[in-house]
Amino acid sequence: MRLLPEPLIDATHAPKLRSWVESANTADCDFPIQNLPLGRFRPAGEEHAAVRVGVAIGDQILDLKLATDLCPWSEEMYPLLQPLAQGDLMAFMALGRPAWRALRAGLSQALAFDSEQGPFLESCVLPQKNALMQMPARVGDYTDFYSGIHHARRVGALMRPDEPLLPNYKFVPIGYHGRASSVGIEDLVIRPNGQTRSSGEQPHFGACKRLDYELELGLWVGAGNTLGLPVSMAQAEDKIFGVGLLNDWSARDIQGWEYQPLGPFLAKSFATSVSPWVVSWQALAPFRKPYERPVGDPEPLPYLDGDFNRSFGAINMTLEVWLQTARMRKERQPALRLSQSNWAEAAYWTAAQLVAHHTSNGCNLQVGDLLGTGTLSGPLFEQCASLLELTQGGKSPLSLPNGETLGFLQDGDTVTLRGYCTAPGAVRIGLGQVTATVLPALAC
Amino acid sequence: MRLLPEPLIDATHAPKLRSWVESANTADCDFPIQNLPLGRFRPAGEEHAAVRVGVAIGDQILDLKLATDLCPWSEEMYPLLQPLAQGDLMAFMALGRPAWRALRAGLSQALAFDSEQGPFLESCVLPQKNALMQMPARVGDYTDFYSGIHHARRVGALMRPDEPLLPNYKFVPIGYHGRASSVGIEDLVIRPNGQTRSSGEQPHFGACKRLDYELELGLWVGAGNTLGLPVSMAQAEDKIFGVGLLNDWSARDIQGWEYQPLGPFLAKSFATSVSPWVVSWQALAPFRKPYERPVGDPEPLPYLDGDFNRSFGAINMTLEVWLQTARMRKERQPALRLSQSNWAEAAYWTAAQLVAHHTSNGCNLQVGDLLGTGTLSGPLFEQCASLLELTQGGKSPLSLPNGETLGFLQDGDTVTLRGYCTAPGAVRIGLGQVTATVLPALAC
Repeated sequence: MRLLPEPLIDATHAPKLRSWVESANTADCDFPIQNLPLGRFRPAGEEHAAVRVGVAIGDQILDLKLATDLCPWSEEMYPLLQPLAQGDLMAFMALGRPAWRALRAGLSQALAFDSEQGPFLESCVLPQKNALMQMPARVGDYTDFYSGIHHARRVGALMRPDEPLLPNYKFVPIGYHGRASSVGIEDLVIRPNGQTRSSGEQPHFGACKRLDYELELGLWVGAGNTLGLPVSMAQAEDKIFGVGLLNDWSARDIQGWEYQPLGPFLAKSFATSVSPWVVSWQALAPFRKPYERPVGDPEPLPYLDGDFNRSFGAINMTLEVWLQTARMRKERQPALRLSQSNWAEAAYWTAAQLVAHHTSNGCNLQVGDLLGTGTLSGPLFEQCASLLELTQGGKSPLSLPNGETLGFLQDGDTVTLRGYCTAPGAVRIGLGQVTATVLPALAC
Repeated sequence: MRLLPEPLIDATHAPKLRSWVESANTADCDFPIQNLPLGRFRPAGEEHAAVRVGVAIGDQILDLKLATDLCPWSEEMYPLLQPLAQGDLMAFMALGRPAWRALRAGLSQALAFDSEQGPFLESCVLPQKNALMQMPARVGDYTDFYSGIHHARRVGALMRPDEPLLPNYKFVPIGYHGRASSVGIEDLVIRPNGQTRSSGEQPHFGACKRLDYELELGLWVGAGNTLGLPVSMAQAEDKIFGVGLLNDWSARDIQGWEYQPLGPFLAKSFATSVSPWVVSWQALAPFRKPYERPVGDPEPLPYLDGDFNRSFGAINMTLEVWLQTARMRKERQPALRLSQSNWAEAAYWTAAQLVAHHTSNGCNLQVGDLLGTGTLSGPLFEQCASLLELTQGGKSPLSLPNGETLGFLQDGDTVTLRGYCTAPGAVRIGLGQVTATVLPALAC
């Protein structure tokens, strides 16, 4: 792997850096001092308090309102902290990449073991378990891509055994507009009602019977572009503020009936879950790797190609889906891992390519927009990141160790997505998790 | 036609009502005192002035900031005028239907010929030609439906001659999520670049060669619903603040290559144009008519059915597309009407059905959301509301009276959409127009 250029990797990535927040220094921690994800929260029990922006560090949160008020900072830091102290993460995102880097450097210094600011900041920290997390941003537009080629091929094979992958797939980063209003971090998802095919003359309207999750990543747009002006591959990563987990809940039976000719609509728009902490694009620098296509595949068209993308465009991130059924919870059995895949192996298109393609027609991205990667399944069975794939369209339900049978999701099932990066010589960087439990459908 | 129930039709619809704004009293006026659409504007030449909310009346605008400051109003009106005086139409929309009705009644009284408020309001009026119109609201989510059955059938026939209308069409109000960020009222649209099929091994990337308009209506959502709680047919119209024209610019060649399997994406997201004046749902009351399906068609499923919808769900509105090419403009020839269709005849689904279906899975609508009806073509050739239909997929270009040939849109073409309602005994109510000129694509 080629050496990462400055300013991608800097002192904030030093593997020996430790924090005065002790829990940040353990090996399996998602949020070491090398991570420093941002999120929005209310202290538990303070439902009417203003929303705060905080930094996850170990199992704690540094409250940036208190930190701004109670701690001395360099002059450079105050304009960066100002929107954050007001709970407005989007206003900070809009400041652009130099600001993101500068804040990260300042926070890294302040949270480091020997920091002069440590004593001031000790009273600005609260346990994560005492915080009610909020949405990091108001989602402007939510776009869902389809960059997981193994997912696309497997799902395609269910519908078109003779042509699993359509001819456009290796040229076009396929995507569609998703529903922004129902993107959330709530830990409950209501099973939707909807129209599905029936054996009678009329379709059936009722509770979805084929409810599924999809393991995706969500890219948070931090800087927009003017309508009409495309973003080149060279500029594309400057638009990405950070990344989190995304569960693209899917009603397969509703989708199967409604999706032709204009794509998924109500099969998706009832809920999309995202993880509350936004891990900065920069924190992922040590895990970058070359973007490579299988031998014999076409080269990306010039507007989707670039030297930097070829050398460093992909990110080596492990992705997992965990399930706990209602019975497992009742019997105090821990959640079970259903799949483990890897972003770089799963995705046919890089984050930069998604941004460049999205804007290639002049479409404007805005601060707070969310780009889903699509389902990130690997080539192997245990890398299938949806039940549609794991059960072959429901035809081959799974047998769980406790004797239960898993087809699609049942009421009471809790689905948890996790993501983390590890590499030799680098400290583990995690995304945390997104978890939600399925509630029964409303009577109809 | 059955008699419309109160409170749908009231004194604000009285056909003999006249305004002290003289231009509102002419027969062909879009904005008589029976209309009173709301919009946002800046006085021309005052680029840095705060945005105002105004009411279109004749060829004038009543500035609601000045009107609030300079005119005495009933106590009931002040809380309604307050957000409007601040230029915040969305905050007013969020007040809900009783507030919309009350404001309408108050404005109707104030603008009437013998109004006591007339002398105070005379200085609060400016000519529409001296205003720079702004977007009426920040679009949260934009959904585009496909309710025009003649359009769906004709476009389907181009792609699937043996099955023009898919089996779901008469059961599901087909729709998809559109791009909110690029919805605008600008009078220029840049021809997009994009990937298209080519005869070679690789697709082509370059300027769209099959640029088209689509005549649609846009429904502005004024009241939302909580995530998880569907809106019934009985409540659905209470969510609709008003209606405007919508041009769903479409890059047919980009769409043809990208749209499988997830629907249109970059073929649409470069621009969607809307008209600046939002005509209230209530102003359309005199033009309601029964919602009827062709004999032999299936009944709507119960969640899309209702007595009120059957009796009054459709709206008799004339819709027109006008074209002026660059040469016509140079030679001072007026624009040419390309089509004339009717909402009630074109649409297979009513506005209430679109809302009920959209939320049937629990999806939440929010103030400022925009619902496109889909292309509203009638069954006849001269009712084709897109060039795709008028030219049979480009195979049969039109001959214009000046000798020009019209296939898809050329740079310099100006497209104007118009919509208006007429009925015996009712004053004409118009939507105004949305107009935009095609600019050349960026070099790529």
